[in-house]
Amino acid sequence: MSSIWTNGGLSLSLFGESHGPAVGAVLDGLPPGREIDLNALNRLMLRRAPGRSTLSTPRTEADIPEILSGLYNGKTTGAPLALIIRNTDTRSGDYAEFTNKPRPSHADYTGAIRYRGVNDPRGGGHFSGRLTAPLTAAGGICLQILSQQGIEIASHLYAVGHVTDRPFGKEDDFQAIRHNLEELGLPVINPLVAAQMKQEIEGARRTQDSVGGIIECRVDGVPAGIGSPIFGGVENVLSSILFGIPAVKGVDFGIGFEGATLYGSQHNDPFTVENGRVKTKTNHAGGINGGITNGMPLVFRAVFRPTPSISSPQQTVNLTTMQEEMLEIKGRHDPCILPRASVVVEAAAAIAILSMLGEAL
Amino acid sequence: MSSIWTNGGLSLSLFGESHGPAVGAVLDGLPPGREIDLNALNRLMLRRAPGRSTLSTPRTEADIPEILSGLYNGKTTGAPLALIIRNTDTRSGDYAEFTNKPRPSHADYTGAIRYRGVNDPRGGGHFSGRLTAPLTAAGGICLQILSQQGIEIASHLYAVGHVTDRPFGKEDDFQAIRHNLEELGLPVINPLVAAQMKQEIEGARRTQDSVGGIIECRVDGVPAGIGSPIFGGVENVLSSILFGIPAVKGVDFGIGFEGATLYGSQHNDPFTVENGRVKTKTNHAGGINGGITNGMPLVFRAVFRPTPSISSPQQTVNLTTMQEEMLEIKGRHDPCILPRASVVVEAAAAIAILSMLGEAL
Amino acid sequence: MSSIWTNGGLSLSLFGESHGPAVGAVLDGLPPGREIDLNALNRLMLRRAPGRSTLSTPRTEADIPEILSGLYNGKTTGAPLALIIRNTDTRSGDYAEFTNKPRPSHADYTGAIRYRGVNDPRGGGHFSGRLTAPLTAAGGICLQILSQQGIEIASHLYAVGHVTDRPFGKEDDFQAIRHNLEELGLPVINPLVAAQMKQEIEGARRTQDSVGGIIECRVDGVPAGIGSPIFGGVENVLSSILFGIPAVKGVDFGIGFEGATLYGSQHNDPFTVENGRVKTKTNHAGGINGGITNGMPLVFRAVFRPTPSISSPQQTVNLTTMQEEMLEIKGRHDPCILPRASVVVEAAAAIAILSMLGEAL
Amino acid sequence: MSSIWTNGGLSLSLFGESHGPAVGAVLDGLPPGREIDLNALNRLMLRRAPGRSTLSTPRTEADIPEILSGLYNGKTTGAPLALIIRNTDTRSGDYAEFTNKPRPSHADYTGAIRYRGVNDPRGGGHFSGRLTAPLTAAGGICLQILSQQGIEIASHLYAVGHVTDRPFGKEDDFQAIRHNLEELGLPVINPLVAAQMKQEIEGARRTQDSVGGIIECRVDGVPAGIGSPIFGGVENVLSSILFGIPAVKGVDFGIGFEGATLYGSQHNDPFTVENGRVKTKTNHAGGINGGITNGMPLVFRAVFRPTPSISSPQQTVNLTTMQEEMLEIKGRHDPCILPRASVVVEAAAAIAILSMLGEAL
Repeated sequence: MSSIWTNGGLSLSLFGESHGPAVGAVLDGLPPGREIDLNALNRLMLRRAPGRSTLSTPRTEADIPEILSGLYNGKTTGAPLALIIRNTDTRSGDYAEFTNKPRPSHADYTGAIRYRGVNDPRGGGHFSGRLTAPLTAAGGICLQILSQQGIEIASHLYAVGHVTDRPFGKEDDFQAIRHNLEELGLPVINPLVAAQMKQEIEGARRTQDSVGGIIECRVDGVPAGIGSPIFGGVENVLSSILFGIPAVKGVDFGIGFEGATLYGSQHNDPFTVENGRVKTKTNHAGGINGGITNGMPLVFRAVFRPTPSISSPQQTVNLTTMQEEMLEIKGRHDPCILPRASVVVEAAAAIAILSMLGEAL
Repeated sequence: MSSIWTNGGLSLSLFGESHGPAVGAVLDGLPPGREIDLNALNRLMLRRAPGRSTLSTPRTEADIPEILSGLYNGKTTGAPLALIIRNTDTRSGDYAEFTNKPRPSHADYTGAIRYRGVNDPRGGGHFSGRLTAPLTAAGGICLQILSQQGIEIASHLYAVGHVTDRPFGKEDDFQAIRHNLEELGLPVINPLVAAQMKQEIEGARRTQDSVGGIIECRVDGVPAGIGSPIFGGVENVLSSILFGIPAVKGVDFGIGFEGATLYGSQHNDPFTVENGRVKTKTNHAGGINGGITNGMPLVFRAVFRPTPSISSPQQTVNLTTMQEEMLEIKGRHDPCILPRASVVVEAAAAIAILSMLGEAL
Repeated sequence: MSSIWTNGGLSLSLFGESHGPAVGAVLDGLPPGREIDLNALNRLMLRRAPGRSTLSTPRTEADIPEILSGLYNGKTTGAPLALIIRNTDTRSGDYAEFTNKPRPSHADYTGAIRYRGVNDPRGGGHFSGRLTAPLTAAGGICLQILSQQGIEIASHLYAVGHVTDRPFGKEDDFQAIRHNLEELGLPVINPLVAAQMKQEIEGARRTQDSVGGIIECRVDGVPAGIGSPIFGGVENVLSSILFGIPAVKGVDFGIGFEGATLYGSQHNDPFTVENGRVKTKTNHAGGINGGITNGMPLVFRAVFRPTPSISSPQQTVNLTTMQEEMLEIKGRHDPCILPRASVVVEAAAAIAILSMLGEAL
Repeated sequence: MSSIWTNGGLSLSLFGESHGPAVGAVLDGLPPGREIDLNALNRLMLRRAPGRSTLSTPRTEADIPEILSGLYNGKTTGAPLALIIRNTDTRSGDYAEFTNKPRPSHADYTGAIRYRGVNDPRGGGHFSGRLTAPLTAAGGICLQILSQQGIEIASHLYAVGHVTDRPFGKEDDFQAIRHNLEELGLPVINPLVAAQMKQEIEGARRTQDSVGGIIECRVDGVPAGIGSPIFGGVENVLSSILFGIPAVKGVDFGIGFEGATLYGSQHNDPFTVENGRVKTKTNHAGGINGGITNGMPLVFRAVFRPTPSISSPQQTVNLTTMQEEMLEIKGRHDPCILPRASVVVEAAAAIAILSMLGEAL
């Protein structure tokens, strides 16, 4: 039951394997009567789709979701919205040997133990990053619903390897990101870092290596009073879905880990009044106090480990002989997952936020 | 329903307010027939109890849980285990004004909006760190059950303000922590940092300030194959409960955020064979691949923001007049929550780990 | 995790054993700001309390719940409401032999297998009907909340053994039940059946036997549009909690099992207009179409098997010798549980209905 | 989130509308490594498929599920198993007027209110009995898994209108049902009632009416000790899924409602020893004591109201004019749903039973 996420009446069920017939999602609990623009959804999917540039894997997939239910006359009906995305460009031969010689830091080894050797190993099977395609499609629908009520979500590449963007901080950061994504091909705030990030990624690709990084995400327009104390906190809910994105190994909110060295007098966000509304002067808390939104933008970060699929030789263990052996992974892989992952983070956040608004059925 | 945490057949329900009659917990789904040593549980509670030293709040609570159900002849019965801890030393007068003049970075403001002004504000009510007392008691029971099957959990103060301990890395780290906790009063690996950390905390106290930090936790003895892909991953499950501890603003696994600058060739953990068993040479993944344990120790960190209750004057907003005002918080507060929080992290981790072992009813 | 019931953001956790320190409940997700009259709650508890007449077990318990959390200034706070009821009049000696010689149709045998012999057997332990005391207290709180918004619930003894009351059908049935309960001591619509029912129960008591029956319950004032199709239907939700009452072996809605012999043309409820509102001429569907309320009163029935605790000799098996043996149950038992169970049914229904109104947090 | 059913680590998500592109199901948590015979599954689907005889609707659907995930090399993988069934023979024109003039006892009226008029009304949309096709396919997979471990499920038409079969009672009842289904086209124990039942159904069809009935189901081979007290009881779990089948208005266990008139001395099932194993002489409890299986066959019944779609004129309300009007339903409808529903009951039961065996992931 590990592939179902549920909160506040909204649930997301993901299914599929990388090289099976299709991947898909069921979103159950969507509020009825919301208009969904399928063309806009398909455009959003392009941000995640592979094969768009040398920055990503050469595998190409149209990634156009087919909606099977829950939409009628262009609107959500309140019934479960199911969508599937057919797998087309699969070459399963690439993956045969990994069952016996697991790739380091992949799920080949752990998956085989968990599922007693019967899981579908082709392309990582159900562990594949390909599962983020239906996640993105489901989240894209939530993004549209949120946008209709004034909630906008954007993320940027906060860090790629050693290259760092500046953190969120200005009103027009969202425009900058959108502009840079279109013009420079990367979602960053500071346009000057785009070229350096590409260089970092290109360098990893050339050396048959990979590089990780950090995605920072902001959610504008969430009213104060959303979320709950203890286990129903915005942090709990968001992290429970964000760790569902393969390669995410850490999540923090507001100033997060960087706040460990601050004193309370520095970290606390003083209240102020702006245009007759309660605000805070700083936003070190990332818009969340006691698990509940305070009306400031939600800010959080997710760290992505470098993708473990690298072509340079690595040490593994032959599970039959129990001898150490060297392994060279061929296949088609992303040297850096972050350019494609930013839309996935936004999509996951949208599902989580929508689930907390109390409108799910 | 925000105060219920549930996974894999085990659920924890927390209840109570800081200044109400009692706080408590219900653990439902415990495996039957496990011996529980209540004296050991009470000793564990002392690590979290307030009033033990100048490092913590002067509020003193015996914090001895009363078990109401689920134990019979010293063993778990399989029925829900309920426990309560009476609140005794409460001075509610301290908190009256915060409803109108919310403390910065506290839940006074967000709680009032969420609960339309009717929540119990005394001592932070249900948002209080006091809720970690029943959490610790419940987790303490799980710690004993895990220990009986060879799973041990320990944590240390990875950082207090600018003072940092060395990370986990050696077999005997657990003994070092236990020894230093007993001898030096702080759970650290490197004994030399204990004095500096105390100084950092004492300094914060003297300046009517507070200081945050990072707790690193390790779980030894978890077999490979525990956890699930996507939303059932060990990271998802652990973070969903860890963010239930007030003040936690970030969680990462293995090398976590520090791994963002590594290349895949550096980050990957090569497989090796040790005493006929599959291991990894490094443990950057924190013992988790694809959401599933790989047999290496689980390692994760939680960042604690400095406690927002500081005595120095802070700016807030008078919600009646909507004017900015200065606020001085009196009350009794911890200058640093981390010394008391390490056992809470271990307790929360124990609940999460036990829930994933497939033994819950 | 079997003792937690959850729906639509509201959850109920029951704990305790018949002869342990206390039984109790945690209600998480109650809407905040609802006034609770504790005196009225205690009066309601009397309807379930044992020892009130010769119709029930001589065991006497004050059954006054102590509220531990979630109430402040007489109102719900939105935080979990926990309550406990101490067990006082327990005589555990009565139950010792049943572990080895299980009572027919009790949970002695199945509980021992399920919990590998370590469950608390005293008084039936966690299986005891005593758990309906905290269920009633929790439901009593929900009954008050519902009543404040115009939703009223009442039930009557539809059948006790061979004596049957007339089914719900008139507007003033609720008054009749209340009147008869007060005057005649039994919740019935037709006052003439009260004496016969008492005779039936008294006869069972005299012959060291027990007698079952049917409770019919009606909920007035639920607006149309509550509930959901498929697994979220009003029938699914109500039955999932009603079968939590020990001895309930069947639940049906509207005309239920009696409708099996009707044709569609007879069973269908034709729509009509009454005072400008849509109604149905008959209510064979019990107010539910497609799992969703249609604005008519909800009507359902629960059948209670005769309590298995009878004093006359019964055949059992000695689990040590695996020989058949005769068993005589001493103890204190109800010859008929139905007079005390009607308030339990109403309480359970109140929890279920409140959970479906979309107001739970 | 109403279309997700979950218990014990197994979850079933149903999606689709009667006249949309497809209906489908996701089963998450299946134990890995179980062989699935897709030909046998397709044969099972024929028992539910429409258009097979004059006893059912003339709508014909191949109803062959396409498996999208979770099967590899003919075995379950432990990953979610998703399947879809395309809708092919749809004539949506039949349903246009029902939005304004709701069919009595259908979900037209309640669905429109619940979903604010935007739900897909064609063919009943998500409320359609067509959703039992993916339910049957999902349950068919569970039936195969259960059968591999010695658990067999069968059901028969206990009653169709006024014609009643004899209840379960003999070892070879399952063979009788299978034989009569094949030879006489109806799953009954007593072959003599088949012709009368057909006559009853044929009579309803001729008079443009419909007829309901009762399905009794038995599960053999479930070991003692499955299920839990209070809300995790076998009765709770089974009823929560059975009420997901449209038209089911009541569920009872063992002797159920018929036991209301029995005394405890008659209803109790005395323990006995048979071939060295504990049994009960009678099985009035339907194999369940205290919510937990006692090793005897599980027996339960579900009452199906007559399908509300009848062609004879009925009174409804025009929701625009708020005037009473007469309605004639054309379309294609079953005069009696029970012959097709027996496999649906077995499928639903299989999902519930499998979820309680503790093998779900």
